[in-house]
Amino acid sequence: MQQQLREHIEKIIPLTDEEFDFILTQFTTRKFKKHQYIIQEGDNVKYAYFVLSGLLKLVYTDNSGKQHIVSFAMEDWWESDYYAFHTQTPATLSLECLEDTEVCCLSLEGYGILCDKLQKMERFFLQKANFGFLAAQRRILSLLTTDAKERYEQLVKQSPLLVQRVPKSLLAAYLGVSRETLSR
Amino acid sequence: MQQQLREHIEKIIPLTDEEFDFILTQFTTRKFKKHQYIIQEGDNVKYAYFVLSGLLKLVYTDNSGKQHIVSFAMEDWWESDYYAFHTQTPATLSLECLEDTEVCCLSLEGYGILCDKLQKMERFFLQKANFGFLAAQRRILSLLTTDAKERYEQLVKQSPLLVQRVPKSLLAAYLGVSRETLSR
Repeated sequence: MQQQLREHIEKIIPLTDEEFDFILTQFTTRKFKKHQYIIQEGDNVKYAYFVLSGLLKLVYTDNSGKQHIVSFAMEDWWESDYYAFHTQTPATLSLECLEDTEVCCLSLEGYGILCDKLQKMERFFLQKANFGFLAAQRRILSLLTTDAKERYEQLVKQSPLLVQRVPKSLLAAYLGVSRETLSR
Repeated sequence: MQQQLREHIEKIIPLTDEEFDFILTQFTTRKFKKHQYIIQEGDNVKYAYFVLSGLLKLVYTDNSGKQHIVSFAMEDWWESDYYAFHTQTPATLSLECLEDTEVCCLSLEGYGILCDKLQKMERFFLQKANFGFLAAQRRILSLLTTDAKERYEQLVKQSPLLVQRVPKSLLAAYLGVSRETLSR
């Protein structure tokens, strides 16, 4: 996992071996099986997760029991119920494995330590947060301005690998369209 | 403006007088009249804006000329076409004053200088970016899971002042519903 995490961080900031050794002290790794929950609604959310391999869905379940997909995450993506993580409140979302998955886990304490002790990592997280915000804003615009067909085409263009790996019914829930609409 | 900006930053990180004096060197202020554009589609986006007074709308205009509201910003909110700002590409959004407005302007260079020279400011921007991302994620969920009436009620609850100040037709464009739906 070390090389993958290092290459991921070094896309934004170069690191010395000593710096990366220190970063590693704040991470642990865990494996999950397909269908396992990493986070369930109501849980304390201890970690943000960096995906080494596999595929995750972050889900909100409404009062009627209907599932809405907040996001997917696969190799080299970060995921968590970030509101619960940052505010240390119970999870309102659930995070479930769609494939066997291996993740690196970073606690809120570890996140704080990395930011405090290594300004490069604060820069890394700032850039990740800025681009996460921009991606979310792009999705809001997509929900406001496009119909089902256009949204699906955008997704195929942006994340072709995701479209191949995720069942159509879940893509429909992510795009906010019906399964039937997507089939047409 | 100085006191307002300082109080805003100190909600997240305490500052010494010297630190705040340094921060101020990176900001300029500007006044705009109601209906004036701060950013127009195609512009180079030089600044991120902190609103001292007034009200702004950030708008995406689709191919058919229809306006979609990405967000509103009023006192103590930050706003810009952040994608264009961070990537230094031409604006795809426009930022227009709905009231006479006064802003503090921070250039990308100034943003970099503040982050480099004063780690406290990098922490401030990181927290802002994290909470901006969470707010965007909440809005995505709202668009996926709620109908027009619920969305309007959520907005009244979250931002009562905004609902009072913004014309109903613009609130409808923000919520992704028709003006008629909102009236009912």
